[in-house]
Amino acid sequence: MSQGKRIVLASRPHGEPTSANFRLEDYTPPAPGAGEVLLRTIWLSLDPYMRGRMNDGPSYAAPVPVNGVMEGGTVSEVIASNNPGFAKGDIVLSRAGWQTHALSDGKGLAKIDPKIAPISTAVGVLGMPGMTAYTGLLEIGKPQPGETVVVAGASGAVGSAVGQIAKIKGARAVGIAGGKDKCDYVTRELGFDACLDHRDPDLAAKLKEACPKGIDVYFENVGGAVFEAVYPQLNAFARVPVCGLIAHYNDREARAPKWASSIMFAILTKRLTFRGFIVSDFAAMHGDFLRDMSQWVREGKVKYKEFVTEGLDSAPEAFMGLLKGANFGKQLVRVGPDKA
Amino acid sequence: MSQGKRIVLASRPHGEPTSANFRLEDYTPPAPGAGEVLLRTIWLSLDPYMRGRMNDGPSYAAPVPVNGVMEGGTVSEVIASNNPGFAKGDIVLSRAGWQTHALSDGKGLAKIDPKIAPISTAVGVLGMPGMTAYTGLLEIGKPQPGETVVVAGASGAVGSAVGQIAKIKGARAVGIAGGKDKCDYVTRELGFDACLDHRDPDLAAKLKEACPKGIDVYFENVGGAVFEAVYPQLNAFARVPVCGLIAHYNDREARAPKWASSIMFAILTKRLTFRGFIVSDFAAMHGDFLRDMSQWVREGKVKYKEFVTEGLDSAPEAFMGLLKGANFGKQLVRVGPDKA
Repeated sequence: MSQGKRIVLASRPHGEPTSANFRLEDYTPPAPGAGEVLLRTIWLSLDPYMRGRMNDGPSYAAPVPVNGVMEGGTVSEVIASNNPGFAKGDIVLSRAGWQTHALSDGKGLAKIDPKIAPISTAVGVLGMPGMTAYTGLLEIGKPQPGETVVVAGASGAVGSAVGQIAKIKGARAVGIAGGKDKCDYVTRELGFDACLDHRDPDLAAKLKEACPKGIDVYFENVGGAVFEAVYPQLNAFARVPVCGLIAHYNDREARAPKWASSIMFAILTKRLTFRGFIVSDFAAMHGDFLRDMSQWVREGKVKYKEFVTEGLDSAPEAFMGLLKGANFGKQLVRVGPDKA
Repeated sequence: MSQGKRIVLASRPHGEPTSANFRLEDYTPPAPGAGEVLLRTIWLSLDPYMRGRMNDGPSYAAPVPVNGVMEGGTVSEVIASNNPGFAKGDIVLSRAGWQTHALSDGKGLAKIDPKIAPISTAVGVLGMPGMTAYTGLLEIGKPQPGETVVVAGASGAVGSAVGQIAKIKGARAVGIAGGKDKCDYVTRELGFDACLDHRDPDLAAKLKEACPKGIDVYFENVGGAVFEAVYPQLNAFARVPVCGLIAHYNDREARAPKWASSIMFAILTKRLTFRGFIVSDFAAMHGDFLRDMSQWVREGKVKYKEFVTEGLDSAPEAFMGLLKGANFGKQLVRVGPDKA
């Protein structure tokens, strides 16, 4: 057995994570016990939610313990199996985390058929980010033909799918992204009707131009200045699916509820719906998602872009870049080759 | 024709309304033209939303113009008719406003059958307040058996119906009201499981005791300190129908959206649904509402209380009292006798 590597949470970040919060360790991957499989990581997915797992405190999932392996979805190969459900060579979707090898009892593993699509899409457009876009937009946002949908992170894994699905449903899609290159990609390659740079000091005015009939669906995955620009432009009966708040993940200040009257007044007078969701809330839609999204990808109606860094060692730096918007597309770490 | 009286908006309030914002005028009720009816007001309904109509500025309804008659729902008698749809002596639900007489072309009038229930209920438990409770609770709040529903203004027209309907649906009902007398009424007469005094400095702690399994539905009609006590105790997947914010109607400060991260984090991590509504959004449910609520009132499952002041002149004082929580039950002004 080759030597394994893993990245653990060395300490909890205060505000922005730094490389000191991560520690690379060598370890000897254990042999699988009865009913277990040994997995070799091929792709590690990096996603904004991981920042939340680095904090102690109440959220929808338990935090990663200090000195624990960082969590994450992976595309992995079964390299040894004592489980009748899995054979050596099977490619599986797993939550093996930031490490080269992991044991599993088979629960929660899903086999990936490499013939259907590149296996990396199982953690991207055909995986959790794609399904987050699909379920949040269609179940909560419910875009109608002719309505206007706004989404930030428009060149990223979730945002790019949100806007493209909005277009498929006949809505106007307005993206927000960081910089001209990303915006050009979003409009020219992905077919959004407009894309604005969130660094633009006139974001609110630009948004008003891009959304002359106001905003009917705001797919919230960033918060911060983007939300503040969007918020006054929400139409009556607008829907706001909330799946992320990346602008606030590094916030350190206390968040007291002394602010309520403004948002509550808008919710009341405009009859807004704000609803938080985690993709797992819509697990029952997984079949619909896979059917629709696979077809849209095949037909070229949904395009995706991957941003790959090489080697497990690259994960902390890549993750810190993701939080700062340095990525351009679905962020992946190539941990091992497709075939060992 | 007898002399008429009306109350107009003399000036827009800054903060809390004062008697200087209202002016009582004498006028001569006009004779009805072709197709018109002349109405004599019997009951005038006073409701918190009227405070919003006194302001200039964007909301879901146009403001009352300065020197215009104050708006309001009434139970009125047709005393002269040139409209084939209405006969002299008909009792109708109208939006005649704060005046003794009004003309109508018949549009928007609904006949009231005095045999079914006391006619005042047409602006109370069987009218807009009752339907606000019914639609907001059932369509947005969706209380499930065993869940906990919290509502403020629990002795008032809307809140009292919310809690009683929650009980009918098998939920635990916790009310919030101003003072011991109201709270006793809410628990002993209306059958809520608990009622807390919103003036209690330990409201949050008392609420925690009264809601040991957290809060699944918060029917928001007040905002302010009550919302702040409720907010941290909302369970995952809680629903917050927002139909009023009486604690803020007199607010004078600007309400900038610089507060967002706290509420958005709770919406995200607890997967909350906040949704504003106006009862007219659910007009299609009017038949269901009347059927269910009439039956519940007949069966004694929904009780109601009226708080009556005498004479149109009493309306401004009564309305200012309503905003301060001085009322106890559905607030009505007896403008004229049942039979002239």
